[in-house]
This record gives sequence, C-alpha cells and structure tokens, in this order.
Amino acid sequence: MAMEVSPLALPLPALPAIAGVALGTAAAAIRYTTRDDVTMMVFPTGTTVAGVFTKNKCPGAPVDWCRAALPGGKARALVVTAGNSNVFTGKAGRETCAQTAAAMAQVVGCKPKEVFLASTGVIGEKLPTEKLTAALPGLAAKLTPDAWQQAARAIMTTDTFPKGVTRMAKIGEATVTISGIAKGSGMIMPDMATMLCFLATDAKIPAPVLQKILSNGIGPSFNSVTVDSDTSTSDSVLLFATGATKHAKVPAEGGPMLRDFTRAVHDVLMELALMVARDGEGAQKLIRIDVTGAVSKKSAHRIGMSVANSPLVKTAIAAADANWGRIVMAVGKAGEPAERDRLSIAVGGVWMAREGELAPDYDEAPVTAHMQGREVTITIAIGLGTGKASVYTCDLTHAYIDINGSYRS
Amino acid sequence: MAMEVSPLALPLPALPAIAGVALGTAAAAIRYTTRDDVTMMVFPTGTTVAGVFTKNKCPGAPVDWCRAALPGGKARALVVTAGNSNVFTGKAGRETCAQTAAAMAQVVGCKPKEVFLASTGVIGEKLPTEKLTAALPGLAAKLTPDAWQQAARAIMTTDTFPKGVTRMAKIGEATVTISGIAKGSGMIMPDMATMLCFLATDAKIPAPVLQKILSNGIGPSFNSVTVDSDTSTSDSVLLFATGATKHAKVPAEGGPMLRDFTRAVHDVLMELALMVARDGEGAQKLIRIDVTGAVSKKSAHRIGMSVANSPLVKTAIAAADANWGRIVMAVGKAGEPAERDRLSIAVGGVWMAREGELAPDYDEAPVTAHMQGREVTITIAIGLGTGKASVYTCDLTHAYIDINGSYRS
Repeated sequence: MAMEVSPLALPLPALPAIAGVALGTAAAAIRYTTRDDVTMMVFPTGTTVAGVFTKNKCPGAPVDWCRAALPGGKARALVVTAGNSNVFTGKAGRETCAQTAAAMAQVVGCKPKEVFLASTGVIGEKLPTEKLTAALPGLAAKLTPDAWQQAARAIMTTDTFPKGVTRMAKIGEATVTISGIAKGSGMIMPDMATMLCFLATDAKIPAPVLQKILSNGIGPSFNSVTVDSDTSTSDSVLLFATGATKHAKVPAEGGPMLRDFTRAVHDVLMELALMVARDGEGAQKLIRIDVTGAVSKKSAHRIGMSVANSPLVKTAIAAADANWGRIVMAVGKAGEPAERDRLSIAVGGVWMAREGELAPDYDEAPVTAHMQGREVTITIAIGLGTGKASVYTCDLTHAYIDINGSYRS
Repeated sequence: MAMEVSPLALPLPALPAIAGVALGTAAAAIRYTTRDDVTMMVFPTGTTVAGVFTKNKCPGAPVDWCRAALPGGKARALVVTAGNSNVFTGKAGRETCAQTAAAMAQVVGCKPKEVFLASTGVIGEKLPTEKLTAALPGLAAKLTPDAWQQAARAIMTTDTFPKGVTRMAKIGEATVTISGIAKGSGMIMPDMATMLCFLATDAKIPAPVLQKILSNGIGPSFNSVTVDSDTSTSDSVLLFATGATKHAKVPAEGGPMLRDFTRAVHDVLMELALMVARDGEGAQKLIRIDVTGAVSKKSAHRIGMSVANSPLVKTAIAAADANWGRIVMAVGKAGEPAERDRLSIAVGGVWMAREGELAPDYDEAPVTAHMQGREVTITIAIGLGTGKASVYTCDLTHAYIDINGSYRS
C-alpha cells in the first residue's frame, strides 16, 4: 500500500563519496516490481568490519551468515535485498545465503565469508535466489562512489522516507568521513531498533577497535528507540572501514586518537536511530523520554522503555491528552525500583506531578499546547539515585493499525 | 464517550444470593453523574478474606489499604468506587481510605481494618471523600442479598458489558456457591489482568486456605490474560467467605475436601478473566495462544505473553491476515529458549510452519477462514521440552485508539 510520508520526516542530505566504497542498486523483482530492491557495496582489500545483530531467537538466515562471517573481521562486499527477509525459510534460506555470497565472491574476487548479507521484508517466503544472483554481475559492473542516496532508497520497505547521515572526524591531522544509511519503520525495538543500518568510513581501523566503537554506540541510539516493542528477526548494523584515506596509524587497542572518530560514529548512529523513530509506522509525534534519579542507568533505561512501549501512554500522546496518570502506571509496571511518593513527572518542561501527587500550581494549558506539537518531551524524576537514560519513541495512531492490518496485501 | 458493546460480549447470568452477603449500589456522583458509582457489600462476623493485588510499583491508595488489612484475614465490608481510582493522590488519597473505612466501620459496627476498599477510574485526581462517606449510611440501609447484577454494573468504567459468574461446589455433603463479578477492559496485563474482581462464597474457609486457593487460581486466569501489556495501579482480586452455609469443618491446612470448591473458584476466576479479554478495548476477536514444548511452564507462559502482547501479531489478527512470520518474530523476541529450526506454528489447528519453515502442504484458505471468525486459536510448538501454557488476548483495532485517545474527555 502507498503510504503518506511521515510528518516527522527529515530530508535526505547529500551523502558524499566514502573513499574506497563503490555502490549501486538494481531492480531484481524479488518482491517489488517497480523499484530497485538490491543494493550492493564493494570495498577494497584491507577493509575491516564490525556488526551488531538482533537478539531475536529466531533470526533470519542472513543474520546467521553475518554472525559466522564477522569474526574474520574483513569485508569486501555487502549485498542487501528489500521485500523478502529470508527469515524462517529453513534449509532453502541457508542455501540462498551461501549461493549469494559465492556468486558475489566470484564477481569481486574474494572469499565468500568476506561478503556480508542483509535482507528485509516478508518473513517465511523463499527468496528467489536465482533472480538475485543473476542480477549481481550487471550491478557490480556499474557501481560508483556516488550512489549513497539511491542505496538509502533501495533498502526501504515500509519506510516513508529514506534515511542517511554523514559526519566528518579528525584522526590525528587527517579528516575522515563516516556515512550511514538505515531503514526501519515498524517492528522496531531493542535489540536492535532498526531492521537494517549500514555505515562506511574511509578510516583505517582495526576490526576489534571498530567493533568496540560500534557496540558502544548502539546502547544510547538504536537500543534506546522503540516503535511498537516488536523486535525484528533481521536487525543488523554493519560498519565498514576501508582505510582508503591516509592517517596516523591506529594502534590495535584504539585509544584517545579515536575520540573524535568515535563521537562521529555515535552521532551517525544516534541520528539514524531518531530518523527511524520519526518514521515509526503511523507516527505523528516524536517522543523523547528522559528518566533521571533511578537507582542505575540500566534501571532508568528500563523505566524509559516501559513508558515508551505503553500503548496507553502512546495513544494519550497521539490525542495530546496530558494524561500523566498513564505515565505513573507505566513507570510502576516497569518492575524497577520506584517509589510513588518520590516520583515527579514533567511534560514539555512543566511539572505535572511532584513527589507522588498533582503539582499544587499545575496548569494544564501549556502542557496541552506542547503536546499538540510534533515533538513531545517527557521527564520522569524517580528520586532514588543518580541513574539516568533517554529513550525515544513515537505515538500510536490509527495509521499504525492501517499499515499493519494490511502489510502483506 | 459512549462505547458500543463488544461483539465478544457474553450475557450477564443470573447471580444468586450468597448466604451471608448483603449488597447494593448507589449514585454518589464521584465522577459519573447519571449512574450508580458506589458498590457496597456487608458480610457477617467470621467472614474470612483473601486478596491478590497489582505488582505495579505505584499502586493506588486503596491497594495499600487492602494490603495492610489483609493479614487480619477478616472482613466485614467492601466499598468500591468507579470513576476515580484514588491513585497518585498522595496524603489526600491515604486520608480518603482511612476516612472511608472509618465511616463504613461505624455503619457496620466493626474495625476499620475489616473494611476493604477498591477504586477504579482516572488517576491523579483527588477523590471527593465527603460525597462518598455521605452516601454510605443510606446505601447500607437498603442492602439486599439480590443485588449482584447491579453490583456488576456499578463497578464498570470503560467496560462495555457487565461481568459475572456463578458456580456451585460440594464440600462434603453440603453444596456451597461461589459468585464473582469483575470489571476491566484496558490497562489489562499481569499482574493483575483485571482492575477489580470480587468473589464471595457461603463456605467457611480459614483465611490462609482461602488465600492459597485464590493465589493458585490467578496464574492460569487473570495472569494469563493481556489486552495491551499495560498494568493498572489498582488491580485487585478479593475473595470473601461468609461461612453462612453449614458444612463439614475445613481443617486449617485445607486438604482434599476442598478439591471441588477449589475447582469452582478457579472456574469463576477463569471465566471472569476471559470476559475481561472479551471486553478488551476495541476487541473484535478473542485470541487463545497455546504454547507447548517449551523448556518449562514459565518459559511457555512468557513466550505466550510475548505473542499476546505483540502489536504486529494483534493487528494482523484484526485484519484476518495469516501472517505467521509475525508469530515467529514474537516467539523469538521473548528471550526464552527457542530454536528456529524446531519451531512449528498452527492457526485454527492448521499447521502453517513446521520445524523452521513453511509447512510443505500449507493451504492458507482454511486459516484465513478461521481468522475471520470471532475466536482465533494459535498453537506454538517450541520442540524443546514439555512446558506448556495457555494465554488469552484480543486483537488490536482502530477502536482501541479511539477509546484511549479520548478517555478523559
């Protein structure tokens, strides 16, 4: 079904070439028949790779493939399909991965385990492998460094806008670039929040260091975003470092010279994660929930996610209803340490509840005005400790029902 | 707002008098202005009581009150208000409880801690205590044994139909009766599933035995029902035993003579819990999820609840879309032991997925036909052990959004 672009959409920025990365897209009619549905990236010898994948116990075959390939730490190619997720496809799904990687390895001249795979779309239908492998040589022949915008579009499924971010960073005296694209709109919940996200940089970073930087960046970004509490079987974030730009050598243990680079990678992850929340199925409002004063950071995060996943909170926000009682309920159901009589809640910076009861001077008007906007901020002060966390979600609207009651048709 | 009666509603049965119980309802205009909103039950000296309450960390003042009163094991009265939950009302909320119990104790001639209280409705607004206490003497003067149907109606808030069940049981040669009423429609999730549920029997049961029977019955009933994963701050189940019917003396430790009585109590709890699912906000279909072959009963229950709380599963069922991939996803996100390649899924008794892939002879037509009905059954075979559990939920529809986007208005 055709979906209107999210009112929270951001424009796709210019995404510059990343030295070493050639990419492109093609139409293989895997499921969609009127758009590009295969995305390819090829990287030079020496490219390192890091990855983080869904914790869903029933992952797709491409996730299994990438997990097995990741310990090698080397990548020469990425192949992404949209429309069919190759999940719950049994032996056929594993064969699709093996055949795709073998075909791509032959095109590039590398080992199959240097080929990374990701698929997104319908679960439980066999992916037509031959359509995919037949498309690979032709697509490989037309790769360019400048197809990042096309790639951001070709990986979309129910997304209503393409998502991409670029940041620059200093490593010593040199400037490197990090770009990322992501797709994701529903079935969005840690871990991972988005279904697919791919980053590339021209920096030269040892694979274990790259993995650490990526893993550390996922917590506050993709793992702090939820649309509907559902966790995809295909969620994957991959970060490729081509090393095509010369800079001071990064030691095997990483270290302070990567501070700016790490910040930039984390920025890209955060921006992309927020774009996913902005494209939450049916989203009309972006919701930020700041939890402070919990007994630990983890506890704060869990409380925030309990509020972010509460259908009653999300429907109240959709209606711009300053129903802070539902926030109290959602804090309480998290199961984390909380004391009703120490709890305070603000929306849009206005304290509604203070230490267990309605704030004496509470005026609902500015809160309602804030909630009628596109971005709603909720602050929850637990009053027990110093743990804090921020999480992000969107409201729950009729459009979510429309989209998910007819996804396959 | 006026809501249409759930298409899954069941008629309210005749609810016979329970020897020893006098009850009635009155209009105190606590919030509603055109209906009865106070329910009262009075019990004879010697009545024992058992209770189970919400695990929400921010419970309402009446829950705190009942928890403190319960260890006494004795009850002489119950006062229930609808429209205002007396939750997150601070010191004023505690005073409301103390004043209500004191006023009722005076009317009945008992101790305040023999008065049990429950409230349901909006959170965070002070309950107008004087309206309530002023109504108590007049209501107490007109109690009868025959007002169970009125009581079932007066405790409702967003419910679209009143809920009541009666069962008979043998204790030795004597026949006793157990009746229960419940209210609950949204914010329904363990523990507890319903906001309020009250049972009474004319049997004479020591309080610790009564408590054990009640606690054991909650797991497969109210704690296996979910509407929207949200957990009320007010959930309470109370069971009163008047002892007004003569039967063989029940020993302090209970024992086999209570087998039939226990079955009957558990039946009442199960039937009421299912009525709550049938009245799930916006529900068009009742969904039963049977999980077998999990590593334990607890694991099976958690997997079932993960599926039952998945918005993607619930919207697919609303659309009669045989999207078993979403069930796979929801099994996997439960975090419980599961192996994709051993997993099998049936809907309406038709196996769609067998051991990790599409069943070879799968025909979608009978599944779609089943899903177009009012009651949908999902069977999930994990294939790892012998743990099994059944949980119940309803579908997620536009009406849920309508109801919860305008509850306060």
